[in-house]
Amino acid sequence: MMEETSTQNIDKRIQMAVEAFRFLKNTTINERAEFMNAVADQIEALGEELLTVTHAETSLPLARLTGEKARTAGQWRSYAKAVAAGIYTEARIDLAQPEKQKGDLRKYNVGIGPVVVFGASNFPFAFSTAGGDTASAIGAGCPVIIKAHPAHPQTSQIMADAISAVVKAFGWPEGIFSHITGTSYEIGAYLTQHPDIRAIAFTGSFNGGKALFDIASRRENPIPVFAEMGSINPVFAFQNLLETKAEALAKEYITSLTLGVGQFCTNPGVFIALKGESFNRFINTLKEEIQKVAPVKMLHKGIFDNFEKNKSIALEQPDVEIIVSAETESSSGNATVIKTSAGNFLNNPVLSEEVFGPFGIVVACETDEDLMQIARQLKGQLTITIAATHEDVRDNSTLITILKDKCGRLLFNGMPTGVEVVYSMQHGGPFPSTTDSRFTSVGPDAVKRFVRPVCFQNWPDEFLPDELKNENPLQISRMVDGTVNSGSLKLQTT
Amino acid sequence: MMEETSTQNIDKRIQMAVEAFRFLKNTTINERAEFMNAVADQIEALGEELLTVTHAETSLPLARLTGEKARTAGQWRSYAKAVAAGIYTEARIDLAQPEKQKGDLRKYNVGIGPVVVFGASNFPFAFSTAGGDTASAIGAGCPVIIKAHPAHPQTSQIMADAISAVVKAFGWPEGIFSHITGTSYEIGAYLTQHPDIRAIAFTGSFNGGKALFDIASRRENPIPVFAEMGSINPVFAFQNLLETKAEALAKEYITSLTLGVGQFCTNPGVFIALKGESFNRFINTLKEEIQKVAPVKMLHKGIFDNFEKNKSIALEQPDVEIIVSAETESSSGNATVIKTSAGNFLNNPVLSEEVFGPFGIVVACETDEDLMQIARQLKGQLTITIAATHEDVRDNSTLITILKDKCGRLLFNGMPTGVEVVYSMQHGGPFPSTTDSRFTSVGPDAVKRFVRPVCFQNWPDEFLPDELKNENPLQISRMVDGTVNSGSLKLQTT
Repeated sequence: MMEETSTQNIDKRIQMAVEAFRFLKNTTINERAEFMNAVADQIEALGEELLTVTHAETSLPLARLTGEKARTAGQWRSYAKAVAAGIYTEARIDLAQPEKQKGDLRKYNVGIGPVVVFGASNFPFAFSTAGGDTASAIGAGCPVIIKAHPAHPQTSQIMADAISAVVKAFGWPEGIFSHITGTSYEIGAYLTQHPDIRAIAFTGSFNGGKALFDIASRRENPIPVFAEMGSINPVFAFQNLLETKAEALAKEYITSLTLGVGQFCTNPGVFIALKGESFNRFINTLKEEIQKVAPVKMLHKGIFDNFEKNKSIALEQPDVEIIVSAETESSSGNATVIKTSAGNFLNNPVLSEEVFGPFGIVVACETDEDLMQIARQLKGQLTITIAATHEDVRDNSTLITILKDKCGRLLFNGMPTGVEVVYSMQHGGPFPSTTDSRFTSVGPDAVKRFVRPVCFQNWPDEFLPDELKNENPLQISRMVDGTVNSGSLKLQTT
Repeated sequence: MMEETSTQNIDKRIQMAVEAFRFLKNTTINERAEFMNAVADQIEALGEELLTVTHAETSLPLARLTGEKARTAGQWRSYAKAVAAGIYTEARIDLAQPEKQKGDLRKYNVGIGPVVVFGASNFPFAFSTAGGDTASAIGAGCPVIIKAHPAHPQTSQIMADAISAVVKAFGWPEGIFSHITGTSYEIGAYLTQHPDIRAIAFTGSFNGGKALFDIASRRENPIPVFAEMGSINPVFAFQNLLETKAEALAKEYITSLTLGVGQFCTNPGVFIALKGESFNRFINTLKEEIQKVAPVKMLHKGIFDNFEKNKSIALEQPDVEIIVSAETESSSGNATVIKTSAGNFLNNPVLSEEVFGPFGIVVACETDEDLMQIARQLKGQLTITIAATHEDVRDNSTLITILKDKCGRLLFNGMPTGVEVVYSMQHGGPFPSTTDSRFTSVGPDAVKRFVRPVCFQNWPDEFLPDELKNENPLQISRMVDGTVNSGSLKLQTT
């Protein structure tokens, strides 16, 4: 069971975060990077005990957890490297010139202030207490208050202790990191409403994310909410590809749909293609393949109950055909795919709702116009996949231009499940997949969410932050009078 | 008089913008930059007629308008240069590697979609129809629907015609730029609620900006609002500086307070200092200086009426002393400064409200703790000025750390009125000075507001946008596997 942190304690921790923010503002990017690498070390040092606890709390296989733990430490390191390189500092200097009115102007990014992070249940390491949101907020120079996910309380506590140990070892203020526990809706609302909180990061359901967004935008001083709320990640399969690869595509699709019992935000919940002989071969292989998938226990009872409920709602809709269904086992997500017509999919909004788990809808289109209509009607998505040959891309350029506007990541073949922690990753798409499509929650660019620029006008060099000093002691890339360089400024003393 | 654009016509223009957006998405940064430079040419070519019309509509002096017109054309050019350099493209490429799961990933920024711009009355060129918001949205690749400011309808029409002429000359879709006119609140609300609008830019009052923010965040698909709503731009004067420069500071302060009849968002509405002999000298010079300021006609009757009303409210507050007041002339903003104690300023929130016009409050502090309390209580500001010697900065480092968190631009001496159109400018501060402190509305970085990233996974080179092609035909800076370069990629064909 998880203890509820009292309101009094929350207030105290937020006050500590406000004080820690003042400290963090005066740290350099190198100091923060050093801290982040130390957290990575600490996470790597956590041994079998962590994996055993997390496995018991989440039912996720040990191999997956081992990989996720390594990724989580790697995330801290890669964000640390980007922070130390000054990429998110975005230092810009415009020197005084006779024709300028304002003299010497220098701008760089500082942390926005204390951030509340809501951990997700489906990635207990990578998107939770010590996950990417926490790493990117601290990288930006923001204290973090984590609201632990109640589905893995012990895992959360171990991770929180690991971070706090680093805070202590560095002699930094304790308020840099706080661990809040509780299961009530009120705790989340209380944190989001608190006037000293400056941003919210969340990964989870649409209802949860949207509720926080509404609270945050109705505050007296509204704050940004970065909520990643999942999506149905459509796969558009085109004719030439389907003809030659119907069977391979069906295998790939089922593998992706059932990966991690379908508990991925990037799960490909919809498959759209033209009816015909190739389509029939796709369906036949799908039937065979899904029978090979062994039912696996889902993350926790709440997730399983929701999966069963939402799946039932979908199955009860008119004109849907259950084409495949594996055996059910108690608390295990049995992979299910239904088939429907384009007309039915377009007219029944229930079929466009995400069913979190191994559940897919195959939409049979009569004409190219059906595909176009579906593209037009589609809401914002984390990913869209184009299963196509080069010729298919040429034949469907208008459709693809429309789809580019509906997602954060556009795949040419392959399947969308999973992300890569690199600069070029975009994990965030138009509403309702996230509340702010302009930012990513995966990859070092996630740091950008928690910074804001401050401009210094005519400040004496000695009082400027290191990032903006003439000497450029941190040797970061800076834009000086419109040109990027990482040198120091040789100025005539005036 | 201004005609009200009908709802039907607005719908038609938004539909045209949606279509134009598809066209703009396929333009390169160079094509957009060329377009923007052509708009600059067109603005520069507008002669005496424009200035005469605008002078009649705004009462702004011809010299000021001549300067503002040059700045406005310059804005288009400087944003065009930044767009062409690919700064806001932020191209990031991570090549396929054996250890990567996802293969080849490439990300760049695209326009967010049709943007509605609400022009301001106080800068009829630079912050209005053809102002910085319009230039930055088009630079980002977004069609613009401008809601003309009713205070200068003819000016707005001339500027709109200039932009439309360029659209026509380029053979681009008409929907790239639309001019909506009207005085009703409903038109603004209608535009902000329209499902096809993707972002709002606004410069004006708190009430206006906040109303749009509320509408936008309560939409079914919420959208970002960049509202610059002004602030009181405090000047904190410290002891050592005040001792040696009381008289010079008073002159500077009055000049800045009355510049453009005080009709600047960066007008220094509050001056805070410790009581004493230097403070008295400051006040005495203030009294002399303000008598030299000739009353000047304000922008329009609405602004004047509001100035008179809000000034009266401030003057009616208990324990304020009207220390100086120039002669009143009909419709002219007579410069007014009142004096009050720190205790009164802290306890009466009315005194922290912006009075748009040449109106200032001088706050006399008893102790350093008063200054600290005022800093702590201060709401978000566009600018804060530290009038100080080096010694003063050293003596007040805690206070200055707090102030850094309350503004977008921090000045060391000098006065805040006016901005500089450069990369390092930050025109945007914590709420309520703007609705989103993470962005600026002045300088090329204003373009950032209207882009979002899209990631391409494993796309064939021929179908990638030029910005991401191996050859790098636009020769822009790109981050490739974590390292920035502007070369082309020599890849082995696989």
